[in-house]
Amino acid sequence: MIDPTAKIGESVSIGEYVVIEENVIIADHVTIGHHVVIKKDTIIGQYTQIGDLSVLGKPPSSNKKMRRKTEKDLEPLIIRDHVIVGCNSVIYREVKLDTGVFIGDLASIREKVIIGEDSIIGRNAIVETNTKIGKRVTIQTGSYITADMIIEDEVFIGPCCSSSNDKYMGKGNFMHQGPVIKRGAKIGNNATLLPAVIIGENAIVGAGSVITKDVPANKTIVGNPGRIIK
Amino acid sequence: MIDPTAKIGESVSIGEYVVIEENVIIADHVTIGHHVVIKKDTIIGQYTQIGDLSVLGKPPSSNKKMRRKTEKDLEPLIIRDHVIVGCNSVIYREVKLDTGVFIGDLASIREKVIIGEDSIIGRNAIVETNTKIGKRVTIQTGSYITADMIIEDEVFIGPCCSSSNDKYMGKGNFMHQGPVIKRGAKIGNNATLLPAVIIGENAIVGAGSVITKDVPANKTIVGNPGRIIK
Amino acid sequence: MIDPTAKIGESVSIGEYVVIEENVIIADHVTIGHHVVIKKDTIIGQYTQIGDLSVLGKPPSSNKKMRRKTEKDLEPLIIRDHVIVGCNSVIYREVKLDTGVFIGDLASIREKVIIGEDSIIGRNAIVETNTKIGKRVTIQTGSYITADMIIEDEVFIGPCCSSSNDKYMGKGNFMHQGPVIKRGAKIGNNATLLPAVIIGENAIVGAGSVITKDVPANKTIVGNPGRIIK
Repeated sequence: MIDPTAKIGESVSIGEYVVIEENVIIADHVTIGHHVVIKKDTIIGQYTQIGDLSVLGKPPSSNKKMRRKTEKDLEPLIIRDHVIVGCNSVIYREVKLDTGVFIGDLASIREKVIIGEDSIIGRNAIVETNTKIGKRVTIQTGSYITADMIIEDEVFIGPCCSSSNDKYMGKGNFMHQGPVIKRGAKIGNNATLLPAVIIGENAIVGAGSVITKDVPANKTIVGNPGRIIK
Repeated sequence: MIDPTAKIGESVSIGEYVVIEENVIIADHVTIGHHVVIKKDTIIGQYTQIGDLSVLGKPPSSNKKMRRKTEKDLEPLIIRDHVIVGCNSVIYREVKLDTGVFIGDLASIREKVIIGEDSIIGRNAIVETNTKIGKRVTIQTGSYITADMIIEDEVFIGPCCSSSNDKYMGKGNFMHQGPVIKRGAKIGNNATLLPAVIIGENAIVGAGSVITKDVPANKTIVGNPGRIIK
Repeated sequence: MIDPTAKIGESVSIGEYVVIEENVIIADHVTIGHHVVIKKDTIIGQYTQIGDLSVLGKPPSSNKKMRRKTEKDLEPLIIRDHVIVGCNSVIYREVKLDTGVFIGDLASIREKVIIGEDSIIGRNAIVETNTKIGKRVTIQTGSYITADMIIEDEVFIGPCCSSSNDKYMGKGNFMHQGPVIKRGAKIGNNATLLPAVIIGENAIVGAGSVITKDVPANKTIVGNPGRIIK
């Protein structure tokens, strides 16, 4: 079902049972898998590939217990050229995926997120709202990137890492701040980052570590709680 | 494909390529996304919204190595009014989602689970069978709620937490018991709960902690293994 | 949409809006759910059941930052008899699922993986490329099995475990090696395994442990970093 207001470029391949809603714009040489849902206003650049059963441009929703209300007037989802999106993934409105980004299967990315050139978001990885991810970043499979987080260029986050942004766990004030991960830092698999910690440039966080305090640039930290080693 | 035995209310919006099986009942003002599969007997209350590509009312299945056999005669899935279900989620038969519940994208909920009013199950979160979740509970993104677990009202579980219910890991007897989390307790992100631990009322479990013993009410516990602090 | 080159056996049940591509072979008594996508060349054995909204036989893809290039000439996905695949799962080309295997909802399995008879891959679990899993193995919900890993027969991996295969985290040489888990070993929930560690036969890894060194056969290890007990 392709809405008549959608603009589809040349040499675009569209799978079976695809839904393309109003005002979608798809550039030339794009490949859309089977059963893909492209919500209204989404913009897709040249040579981009979308896997089967994915949803693009979902508007946020919430129940009455949730802090962030559904926001009106979000910008559309913009996916630039040569992007690859996996199968069964969900990407919200007002996300910007820059050229060459890779999104794995079963990943989801909330609204107000920017992901820089050639960065990788692994399978089952989740990016919450209002987070900025730089260029050539790797976020491996199953990692959880909380809201209000900053990840600079060339950061490496191993599989199954976890982060949080609310030190009062739902009961304090509402000034949330996720971790800040500086350029080139590396986070081992299944590490835990507490709210607002700053991981310095080229710092290394060991696998399974629990990071409760800032980590200076170029240092290595391991353990629970994390301690800096030699 | 809507089975002719299904009963669809007034002002119901149904997306493209939806499958509604036998004896489904959908109340007024419900919104069903694209490619949704609603299995037989499912009951959906007023003003509820179902995201694209979700499966509602799945019957359980198993192979010969699995303890719990496929059960006949499970009750239908019942979703009450004003519930929101995300995209690409899977909810089984004999689940009851009370009024105002929110289920994120890519979540899954097994059979014989009850979730109370206004509770939130985050994206990619998983709830196993035979677990009871109270009212106004928050289970954040990616957390794993094992089988045979009890979560009381107003509990907060941060992202990526893990729980288990089988201290013999598949080789002992079959009396399984998941953790019990008492009213108002808070669990930090990526915490690990061992089988049958009891987290007391308003207790706080630090991020990344491993909880091997019961935690008294109003206490804070951190570390691996968890130790109570001041 | 069933491609005319596909060969479909007798007593095969096919759901609504299914896509079956070129040269697929489906044996007798198979059940295919709604909205399933079966990519070209996939082979499915007798009495196998495929859940709704799953993708079978996906070819790998990558962006320019990724080590493993898309490989030509991968073998087809082969699923043997009496296999059960859940909903919203993604299984790649050149995977072999032996008789009686169970794959949960929202799971994904990369190319060049073999899974032995009657093994279980839980919901949301992920298996990376080039990994071999034995017979009667249980990998519980949400666990992450890295690439280049060996899991012998009758291993038990609890929920939410994590493993990795690259000690240089993207910046060293490219000789990757995942953990080796010997026959009958058991891994507790949310344990973290570092690259190339060997877990001995019937060893037990405690929940939440971080395993940085090899574990001898029949030993129990707990903590961060893991230490062998009594």
